[in-house]
Amino acid sequence: MSSIWGNKIKISVFGESHGTAIGVVIDSLPPGEKINLSEVKLQMNRRRPIDENLSTSRAEEDNPEIISGILNETTTGTPLCAIIQNKDANSQDYSSKEFMLRPGHADFTSYIRYKGFNDFRGGGHLSGRLTAPLVFAGAICKQILKRKGIEIGSHISSIENISDKLFDPIYLKSSLLKTLSSSRFPVISSKVRKKMEEKILEIKTQGDSIGGIVECAIIGVPAGIGNPIFSSVESKISSLVFGIPGIKGIEFGSGFRSSKMKGSENNDEFIFKNGKVQTLTNNHGGILGGISSGMPIIFKAAFKPTPSIAKTQKTVNLKSGLPCKLNIKGRHDPCIAVRAAPAVEAAASISILDFLI
Amino acid sequence: MSSIWGNKIKISVFGESHGTAIGVVIDSLPPGEKINLSEVKLQMNRRRPIDENLSTSRAEEDNPEIISGILNETTTGTPLCAIIQNKDANSQDYSSKEFMLRPGHADFTSYIRYKGFNDFRGGGHLSGRLTAPLVFAGAICKQILKRKGIEIGSHISSIENISDKLFDPIYLKSSLLKTLSSSRFPVISSKVRKKMEEKILEIKTQGDSIGGIVECAIIGVPAGIGNPIFSSVESKISSLVFGIPGIKGIEFGSGFRSSKMKGSENNDEFIFKNGKVQTLTNNHGGILGGISSGMPIIFKAAFKPTPSIAKTQKTVNLKSGLPCKLNIKGRHDPCIAVRAAPAVEAAASISILDFLI
Amino acid sequence: MSSIWGNKIKISVFGESHGTAIGVVIDSLPPGEKINLSEVKLQMNRRRPIDENLSTSRAEEDNPEIISGILNETTTGTPLCAIIQNKDANSQDYSSKEFMLRPGHADFTSYIRYKGFNDFRGGGHLSGRLTAPLVFAGAICKQILKRKGIEIGSHISSIENISDKLFDPIYLKSSLLKTLSSSRFPVISSKVRKKMEEKILEIKTQGDSIGGIVECAIIGVPAGIGNPIFSSVESKISSLVFGIPGIKGIEFGSGFRSSKMKGSENNDEFIFKNGKVQTLTNNHGGILGGISSGMPIIFKAAFKPTPSIAKTQKTVNLKSGLPCKLNIKGRHDPCIAVRAAPAVEAAASISILDFLI
Amino acid sequence: MSSIWGNKIKISVFGESHGTAIGVVIDSLPPGEKINLSEVKLQMNRRRPIDENLSTSRAEEDNPEIISGILNETTTGTPLCAIIQNKDANSQDYSSKEFMLRPGHADFTSYIRYKGFNDFRGGGHLSGRLTAPLVFAGAICKQILKRKGIEIGSHISSIENISDKLFDPIYLKSSLLKTLSSSRFPVISSKVRKKMEEKILEIKTQGDSIGGIVECAIIGVPAGIGNPIFSSVESKISSLVFGIPGIKGIEFGSGFRSSKMKGSENNDEFIFKNGKVQTLTNNHGGILGGISSGMPIIFKAAFKPTPSIAKTQKTVNLKSGLPCKLNIKGRHDPCIAVRAAPAVEAAASISILDFLI
Repeated sequence: MSSIWGNKIKISVFGESHGTAIGVVIDSLPPGEKINLSEVKLQMNRRRPIDENLSTSRAEEDNPEIISGILNETTTGTPLCAIIQNKDANSQDYSSKEFMLRPGHADFTSYIRYKGFNDFRGGGHLSGRLTAPLVFAGAICKQILKRKGIEIGSHISSIENISDKLFDPIYLKSSLLKTLSSSRFPVISSKVRKKMEEKILEIKTQGDSIGGIVECAIIGVPAGIGNPIFSSVESKISSLVFGIPGIKGIEFGSGFRSSKMKGSENNDEFIFKNGKVQTLTNNHGGILGGISSGMPIIFKAAFKPTPSIAKTQKTVNLKSGLPCKLNIKGRHDPCIAVRAAPAVEAAASISILDFLI
Repeated sequence: MSSIWGNKIKISVFGESHGTAIGVVIDSLPPGEKINLSEVKLQMNRRRPIDENLSTSRAEEDNPEIISGILNETTTGTPLCAIIQNKDANSQDYSSKEFMLRPGHADFTSYIRYKGFNDFRGGGHLSGRLTAPLVFAGAICKQILKRKGIEIGSHISSIENISDKLFDPIYLKSSLLKTLSSSRFPVISSKVRKKMEEKILEIKTQGDSIGGIVECAIIGVPAGIGNPIFSSVESKISSLVFGIPGIKGIEFGSGFRSSKMKGSENNDEFIFKNGKVQTLTNNHGGILGGISSGMPIIFKAAFKPTPSIAKTQKTVNLKSGLPCKLNIKGRHDPCIAVRAAPAVEAAASISILDFLI
Repeated sequence: MSSIWGNKIKISVFGESHGTAIGVVIDSLPPGEKINLSEVKLQMNRRRPIDENLSTSRAEEDNPEIISGILNETTTGTPLCAIIQNKDANSQDYSSKEFMLRPGHADFTSYIRYKGFNDFRGGGHLSGRLTAPLVFAGAICKQILKRKGIEIGSHISSIENISDKLFDPIYLKSSLLKTLSSSRFPVISSKVRKKMEEKILEIKTQGDSIGGIVECAIIGVPAGIGNPIFSSVESKISSLVFGIPGIKGIEFGSGFRSSKMKGSENNDEFIFKNGKVQTLTNNHGGILGGISSGMPIIFKAAFKPTPSIAKTQKTVNLKSGLPCKLNIKGRHDPCIAVRAAPAVEAAASISILDFLI
Repeated sequence: MSSIWGNKIKISVFGESHGTAIGVVIDSLPPGEKINLSEVKLQMNRRRPIDENLSTSRAEEDNPEIISGILNETTTGTPLCAIIQNKDANSQDYSSKEFMLRPGHADFTSYIRYKGFNDFRGGGHLSGRLTAPLVFAGAICKQILKRKGIEIGSHISSIENISDKLFDPIYLKSSLLKTLSSSRFPVISSKVRKKMEEKILEIKTQGDSIGGIVECAIIGVPAGIGNPIFSSVESKISSLVFGIPGIKGIEFGSGFRSSKMKGSENNDEFIFKNGKVQTLTNNHGGILGGISSGMPIIFKAAFKPTPSIAKTQKTVNLKSGLPCKLNIKGRHDPCIAVRAAPAVEAAASISILDFLI
């Protein structure tokens, strides 16, 4: 399978960047869940371009049309399908370059995978635009989770060498997550935002792009969800997060840092607090043995720099079989990590809801 | 589901650390594949304790009994089941401590998940011992992949701050992978091994443990396997790798480093070489858009330090509801990353074969 | 899961009878398959009402809009989504009767299943109208199968006590299947059609409805597809066929009749013919041990009479908790078996293609 | 996939008729369920040969060894594996006939499917012996269902033209199901048993075999389980029932008979009874729209006659490419339907539990 995910909740994503529309079918949502469509729209807007400086100038409205599964603003329990029209696709940017492989893109791999029959325009089905239906699905799941006391938020924890404060892994407030989760440039420290924006602009002026890291937190998940071995919380979240284009790594809790730690440093001491078993520190990132501990679940996802850059790049022409030079015009974000935060939250929301129903 | 993995090939792992036996069912292997059982045994031996200094002294023979699916040393194509007896289980080490939550372990989370009914002895089904059937399954898949020109190997790329040389992401030799994949302490630079062993011993003497990183490479995978979005090569590998106890992070190609890179640095230039499209560098780690590029697939997995340490730790007693001090006796590895390399290779082998049949 | 089916090819059906639209996502189709949309349309027309006498007068055009997955009339290999607008829904027929349970319908079971939140109008997601996207998906698969030398067709083998000739299980011609598969009232013996139409009209005049049996054949399937035990050809076909509303039974080859036969009668003798292993008779219906034998695959599906009838029926009112009398107006087929033939062929087409890719 | 089934509960069956052992892994059972192993053994005994006259004389003890997943006679919630040794396999019966295709058997289809590498002895993985692990799994599920007020039983409703009384589809007593479910020759009318036994003996004396029908009932299932379209109760049960060798058809409620009925006859009137919505008749077999109605779920499965008969049969020799005559010795049941009843109940038990957790 390719574009269907899930065990209980199933998400089927479809569409191409420059086709008629993109969309999603969400199967097995619980019935009777009130859905606030303006909140869904807010999440979708976070994924849309911010302004002409910081992001692509392709200006899709991203207005999801609900085809099925919602009646009287409430889930029916049968499959929810939503369609998002592609209105501002600009295919002529691609036509002449069809066979010039864009470095860092999937032009070559998808050409081989689909034997040349895939819709290559704007990346087709492999475009970052396909995160729009993911964000839609995540926004639906998020509202259902909120009713269960679960809150999810993320921030841009670093861009190049500029780092935001990290989440407090113990005293993580729901109010902070709510604020971040409605921001179009989510950072904990407001001073950092300005620095990051300046860095992105600087990079853009160079005709280049830059990577970044998104840190995501999930609070309110009860202890005991997830499974050992193959269906761990980490397995499920990572299998979905790696569906977001541009992600090159994921780590939970102390993550890669734990590889340099001693057991006596990394182990989290158990305590009783408010009548519940908790841990004094949270290097385990809320998951032990693949199962939630009740502590905040915290993970980081690393985004590579946008592969589409204005600088001239060397590559090959698949048709002529010759080396060539490529100038990408089009309209591209200098830093995909910024608009990716809602997609990461969506992946987290869907994963957690999948465990809970 | 919990202990079944896969889309085409299905791996069903069962058993508890101190039960009768552990084992695995491998469903949908292709028929007619010759299986060299001594090579399988070699992989299983790599996972077994090395010596009393560097690893646990629990000395299981780990002799897999083939129950079904192999006839005349050849796969029949029907489910292959193998059983590994537990002979050296030492349950009395656990009896008195049943309700003292071991920090860094899944005692608490599995207690909640299974409502107290799980076999807690030695971690039960959540024990690192369950990597034995995984390694068995991986060793079977590896032999089938080898016949398709695919070679998989890994090494301990770092322990604390001691780092081995990394894989050459372009000129990666099959001979190196073969050597590593038969070593019980796989490192590229032999000088590093001594330093690592000294570090592990030093840590052990302190009654402590240490983390590490395993770097794994897969060469010979043809371009065009894998899928965009949810069934990407990264999604599949990570969903299986996170089934190995102790893993806290995974990254592909330039991974977390890419978050600090510019597009012009991270993009890999396409070239024609030997009549094939290749890349000049390999920051993409052999995967673009979730699909293999034909370049070596390279990923790193971060292992936390062994949670079982000899030092006295503070924790709580789940039964009494009181804080307590815990001294873990038992027999434990000071660094799980060492014996984990074959498990990581196994996860890679199974994932790749799952895409190829 | 509810409305997603499949192992390799995945079919996700969505929509409600009186909602905006219904549709389907087909995931994992092979790339590069030419699709003739007028042939698809022909299959969809077969499912549409024939005339005012023999079927409902709800006159949907059933024009599928391809949203994704097809470029230049060729499959791209990425998910194919098609939408069919609901234009002639007539919801006022239902409004006043919301809580009067229609006998033979799923009003009560879906009310409980979805806690009252489902779209009840016209059966909502459980409506026979949902066979339209199934027929669409089947028509796509059928064209791909045809290129592999596989032909699928069906006929109305009986309505009440009027029986058509059965398929010759050995000498089954591709031309017959093609003719049937483009007919809106598929029968082998043309004389039978008239009798059946008269019977249906007679029943309709009584304000009643009638059941029927559809016999379906698949020729050209190579020997060796399918699996023993849980993923047999029978398991796969039946799991999909029972997704068609109104089906109460399925049998393969000699089916229920075999329960009265002796082994010496039911066993099919093997012979060599045209250099291939074949059988002299075909009681096994083309499947032995869950695996295709290369002989025609033949099965029958029994349809119950349309539950919506014009006669007054006794039932209960779920709201008032009182018995009541129900007169169903609406527009309904007197015999669903007639329009069901293309749905059965679709189920067969999808199932077989799922085994072949 | 081939020998793994399930959505929530997963059953993985392995082993070959003449290999070391056969067995099953049951994944995702709820923790804390007390399992009475002697009741499990009772079900397994029902599947074993009755006496030398009515069944094969291969006398396996079928003693399941629990490898994992049960501690203190209680499910742990982690995978339950059980192994059943093959002790009385008699492979020399097969050796000389390896390439003579037994009519009605899967020798040819499995030879093609597995490219000649499968274990052909006694049918290998495709043997009826593989119903032993299915019956084991079903017996575990049945005990869990009983605690939820659900009772499952079946009887031999016909052998050739000798018919037992059918289940009363409304007033079906749990005591009757219990009695049947512990009988080795389950029939409702005791007089019928004698006639059936005589018929079987008569057929056996002729060197022949005979088919039969098993009727199965499930009572106590609450209204509202199952799903419309592809994951209906019928889809799930039939996908598992067709995993039992020898089954050629399945029907629910009025089944094939409904194809001859009028809507006014087949529709079941809704009534209020004991404060609950019920139906006055039960032609729907407890399922409407794929969802349970709370009425008894009733289905019939048709078994073909045992393909192994003592009569000389004409067939071909796959090696020589010549026609030949075959005399099957071995030890075979003259009527598989008799011993199949517990397998049908097992399939029903597993299916229903899969919906309930």
